[in-house]
Amino acid sequence: MRQAVLNLEESKIREVANAGMGRADVLPFWFGESDEVTPEAIRAAGIASLQAGETFYSHNLGLPALRDAVAAYTSALHGGVAIDRIAITSGGVNALIVAMQALIDAGDEVVAVTPVWPNLTAQPRILGARLRCVALQPDAAGAWRLDLPALLAAITPATKMLVVNSPNNPTGWTLSKAEQQAILERCRATGTWILSDEVYERLYYAGDTASGAAPSFLDIARPDDRLVVVQSFSKAFLMTGWRLGYLVMPPDMTPQVGKLLEFNTSCAPVFVQRAAMVALAQTEAITPRIVAHLQRCRDTLVPLLQAVPGVRTSAAPGGMYAFLRIEGQDDSLSLAKRLVAEAGLGLAPGIAFGPEAEGWLRWCFASQDAARLGQGVDRLRAWLAAQA
Amino acid sequence: MRQAVLNLEESKIREVANAGMGRADVLPFWFGESDEVTPEAIRAAGIASLQAGETFYSHNLGLPALRDAVAAYTSALHGGVAIDRIAITSGGVNALIVAMQALIDAGDEVVAVTPVWPNLTAQPRILGARLRCVALQPDAAGAWRLDLPALLAAITPATKMLVVNSPNNPTGWTLSKAEQQAILERCRATGTWILSDEVYERLYYAGDTASGAAPSFLDIARPDDRLVVVQSFSKAFLMTGWRLGYLVMPPDMTPQVGKLLEFNTSCAPVFVQRAAMVALAQTEAITPRIVAHLQRCRDTLVPLLQAVPGVRTSAAPGGMYAFLRIEGQDDSLSLAKRLVAEAGLGLAPGIAFGPEAEGWLRWCFASQDAARLGQGVDRLRAWLAAQA
Repeated sequence: MRQAVLNLEESKIREVANAGMGRADVLPFWFGESDEVTPEAIRAAGIASLQAGETFYSHNLGLPALRDAVAAYTSALHGGVAIDRIAITSGGVNALIVAMQALIDAGDEVVAVTPVWPNLTAQPRILGARLRCVALQPDAAGAWRLDLPALLAAITPATKMLVVNSPNNPTGWTLSKAEQQAILERCRATGTWILSDEVYERLYYAGDTASGAAPSFLDIARPDDRLVVVQSFSKAFLMTGWRLGYLVMPPDMTPQVGKLLEFNTSCAPVFVQRAAMVALAQTEAITPRIVAHLQRCRDTLVPLLQAVPGVRTSAAPGGMYAFLRIEGQDDSLSLAKRLVAEAGLGLAPGIAFGPEAEGWLRWCFASQDAARLGQGVDRLRAWLAAQA
Repeated sequence: MRQAVLNLEESKIREVANAGMGRADVLPFWFGESDEVTPEAIRAAGIASLQAGETFYSHNLGLPALRDAVAAYTSALHGGVAIDRIAITSGGVNALIVAMQALIDAGDEVVAVTPVWPNLTAQPRILGARLRCVALQPDAAGAWRLDLPALLAAITPATKMLVVNSPNNPTGWTLSKAEQQAILERCRATGTWILSDEVYERLYYAGDTASGAAPSFLDIARPDDRLVVVQSFSKAFLMTGWRLGYLVMPPDMTPQVGKLLEFNTSCAPVFVQRAAMVALAQTEAITPRIVAHLQRCRDTLVPLLQAVPGVRTSAAPGGMYAFLRIEGQDDSLSLAKRLVAEAGLGLAPGIAFGPEAEGWLRWCFASQDAARLGQGVDRLRAWLAAQA
């Protein structure tokens, strides 16, 4: 087997979760997923398609009607995006690896902003790229910041691709429009592709954009810029298990991605795509409710955590995570395992997202019952008190 | 964009199909897909899962219950295969590329037996492998044969992987057990991995095996041999559009594939996996009927074709295609396009499957209404007569 694959780390989040698997007394906040089922209307569309017998192969790039709906949805958020820039994929993660397959040769240099969802740094390694990381840094209050000059300096003509996830999993850090502008200009100068994972864009609480969504590179880029934006139906429509996402890219790239989709998954199931069409058609009824609920969850959890002695965390502008540091706890994997075993509290260890996040813990606050968040904090507080 | 991706050919099958798209007067036999909807019981299981709200992420390797059912199904056909050798994938094509990701570094040598489904030769190119092809050859009657000594000689210690598809798309050629034994021994000697695409194994009409399925490398290999078998639910269960397949591999490889699945698609939808569990549970009721019907289709089509002056074709032991040569017609792409335009007959051009198949045409005989096959032959005969 390939050394590059053997070298890939098993997920440290799963390592913690496995330690608590099957224990009904553990409150799980470890995975990046709401505990709420996909809305009824979306499921009904998938069911109707199956009943109608839509069980055949479909277009590599996705149903034209869905691509059209995605283009309209994206245009409403970020200005004109035409259907010839859209490809439907089998999830956001699939969109990411297909985009990288299109752009990265073995040996190419990729720059990533970390800490980040581990898939984003594993995928370039699978493709044989050389990975360089630029680290976000937490401030005294626990908010994470980008050292923009350091990032701009790290991007050189040798950099084939910049990978950035904003709003960021796990920190909630979100690029500003001015930062995106500076990065885009630098990447134009160096010929670097920007692969922008914006799957949390709707889960944005700052209220400082016209659309309500987080700033997107699509707001400022030209169609022919070397920009690929990755999106997913998972977060804004509660469709994690459906495995459906999409790419927005320069029009010239779309046929190339179509070829790659044929060789990766061929197509997404039609009945899944039909469900997504209803999701987009009803986004006004579905997404604001989800976002408002997540904001309530964040605004419930973060103040409770901040009131726990020794805990440092900050209400992030985007995403569905609280990212926290507990004074004196420097080994996040062992801490997360102890919290499962001794407190019945399931969190993700920061080290899973990069060395700069060691000592931190990720808490997914996408909980249908916000009271569970308070119960979790009570467990943390009691456990910490017992350590003193 | 990567030169390796730009170099990938667009599908010549699609090129022909696009020429006939939307024309109700064309009889389409170009794609490798039955025109029959997935059986009701399988669809009902998917629907029930959606109604029950199974819309969340699942295990990277697949639901343990489905992996267990796949292991039992495979064991019934080919002897003991344990669950720790099974991974569920988002289609057979996804199984193939994930297996290649696990095993092939850029620059590695891959040997493929051709003509073959173009995905099998495109995927190594995407991964930067050096591809060498060993060509099957047609005999005077139109049956395709392997030059076994030539293949064994082509496999050297420098060969990282052999890719073989048997029963073969497009020719229907099928490896014998003795040929598999010789190939396995050679690959053991050279340390070469065998990636065996056996998705047509149930579509086997020779009746010379105990299971009824085509000979499989699983019949003769040890669990720790460097053998990866690719399977799909598409053919034996009429589930093309569901995008579900699986890998059978050495137990040590399974956790590595689990990591790669996380980074490719994360998992297959649970509701799709539930449908597959019903497919396997009811395979005795579902698959023999499908296979018997396909055999009737083959035995309807091939004699009709053989009776057309100038046509050379042979009833293949496996698969769902007739592969035919028309005397004096050496440019299969232009021929296929003319047949669409002038005869209303949609076939796939041989050149799509490799240069050795130039001049040939692939005819998918998976037709719910076998009378359509006769209508197609009538159109071919009339068109040929008009050329004379």
